[in-house]
Amino acid sequence: MKAYISVDIGGTNIRAAVFTEAEISPITRKKIPTRGNQLPQDRMVELIAEIWPGNYSVSAIGISAPGPLDPVSGMIFSAPNIPAWKNFPLKTYIEEKFHIPVVTGNDANMAALGEWKYGAGIGHHDILYLTISTGIGGGVIIGDQLILGCKGLAGELGHFTVDPDGPACGCGKKGHLEAMASGPAISRYVIDQINKGRFSSLPNSLSITTRDIALAASQGDGLAIEALTRAGEYIGKALADYLHVFNPSIIILGGGVSFSGPVLIETIRKAVYQNVISPQYTEDLIFTTAALGDDAGLLGALTLARMEFSHG
Amino acid sequence: MKAYISVDIGGTNIRAAVFTEAEISPITRKKIPTRGNQLPQDRMVELIAEIWPGNYSVSAIGISAPGPLDPVSGMIFSAPNIPAWKNFPLKTYIEEKFHIPVVTGNDANMAALGEWKYGAGIGHHDILYLTISTGIGGGVIIGDQLILGCKGLAGELGHFTVDPDGPACGCGKKGHLEAMASGPAISRYVIDQINKGRFSSLPNSLSITTRDIALAASQGDGLAIEALTRAGEYIGKALADYLHVFNPSIIILGGGVSFSGPVLIETIRKAVYQNVISPQYTEDLIFTTAALGDDAGLLGALTLARMEFSHG
Repeated sequence: MKAYISVDIGGTNIRAAVFTEAEISPITRKKIPTRGNQLPQDRMVELIAEIWPGNYSVSAIGISAPGPLDPVSGMIFSAPNIPAWKNFPLKTYIEEKFHIPVVTGNDANMAALGEWKYGAGIGHHDILYLTISTGIGGGVIIGDQLILGCKGLAGELGHFTVDPDGPACGCGKKGHLEAMASGPAISRYVIDQINKGRFSSLPNSLSITTRDIALAASQGDGLAIEALTRAGEYIGKALADYLHVFNPSIIILGGGVSFSGPVLIETIRKAVYQNVISPQYTEDLIFTTAALGDDAGLLGALTLARMEFSHG
Repeated sequence: MKAYISVDIGGTNIRAAVFTEAEISPITRKKIPTRGNQLPQDRMVELIAEIWPGNYSVSAIGISAPGPLDPVSGMIFSAPNIPAWKNFPLKTYIEEKFHIPVVTGNDANMAALGEWKYGAGIGHHDILYLTISTGIGGGVIIGDQLILGCKGLAGELGHFTVDPDGPACGCGKKGHLEAMASGPAISRYVIDQINKGRFSSLPNSLSITTRDIALAASQGDGLAIEALTRAGEYIGKALADYLHVFNPSIIILGGGVSFSGPVLIETIRKAVYQNVISPQYTEDLIFTTAALGDDAGLLGALTLARMEFSHG
């Protein structure tokens, strides 16, 4: 019997699972911390060997990897949290160890693919997936095709200028969506305002998280509500503009910040509807949050492997 | 022998041409003014009948139409310069007259398709086409597929917010690229500055065109250079952000304003290169202007007809 192995390399954990030809519940799964004594690629090889199914013939390994990568060659250009991976040939490294085809994709693209095939986007052909957490990224599927571009670098939806006078983004440019509305951007805004003397129930601490801010907002803290509303408006306006560019039938929000409560989500939703140039962009639009949780990357990499090798 | 008829409905002229199965030089072509005594659809029907080839069997009619339309049903939602076309079923109207399949697309998408197949984009699979004239529009081809979205409303690249504090766009929203850098936006900036007392060799006249401004810039007029530089920076920054989103291998600029001289084009090019988050987006990027001129729409509609019916 055939099986697929799926691997999701995150900043904190590497997860791996074995799936049969058609099921979406894995027959085996395991996770290990990303950081450890050995190089991450060697830890990953051990993990794959450990879950390798005895009674199945493995058709392919699908890997969801962080950071920009070339999805054709499987070369990782750089990976946040894994400094050792500068131009690391992930695909060929793993293929040489296991003599099995390996397919790779970046984490946001893989999550989009997973949500399209097995999650919130089932039945949709045109999907905009935006993930909001430490950074803001995305994956876009149009006409059932993942938008990759000529080097697989498409879908960087967080690196669009939303305020030319805004603060510097992690990438070095100014006023990108990620710089205005990611988790750290929301925290930074709260801390800045407290430092300017604004009252808040939140402590003046660099370790304030979006979760703390969401909790304070739910208890009526004015500054917390303002910070989430401000971020939500930036995100909603950008999503309206992305509707003009991609015209999807569904927007799926993923990433930890998306699940930080109603203030942010409702602000985003309202701003999307208010900022489209024609009601046709929103009249049948589904606006929802991701359904696959921590399994989005695993199921996305599984989708990619199945798409490329189920008839092979 | 088989032939295709291609029609390009512009604000000023309706062009039509007959093409054989494979050639890109038409065997017949004719244009008529868009405005006249009869309804434009009836004038178009007469035009098609007039050029109908006697010795060929017409496989399909491809039509490039202005304004937002549903490319599947061929319904035009609205058309600038043709007030009579509100929810006008262009495809079925023409099909009922000629009993031949009709395929339709909006003008910017058709121009992108024409440039991809027969123009500046030959050999590229991932194309970003931006047209800058009275408005700013676009067409994007990724993996040899035109990005249409669920209702065919994708590719509205001019309706992306580039300055949240900017002036109102024709669509009613604020600070869109079209409101900052289209032909009328460039003229408006010059007129506003002259009204504020700025010196310029240009007259204080509402009829100043981008061509006048480009000419003045070429003669060293400071305000004209500033106006084109300002527009070019907005366009270049937006294009850099679109590189992050689509990762094309070529950017093709079309529309009258693109041909208004080196100040604008060079500013755009520089801003694109300065604003990408990684040099990988630009290192093999081709940056060029459209090659098909006034024939882009005709050849795009021809491409669409041939793609859908050459094996039918």
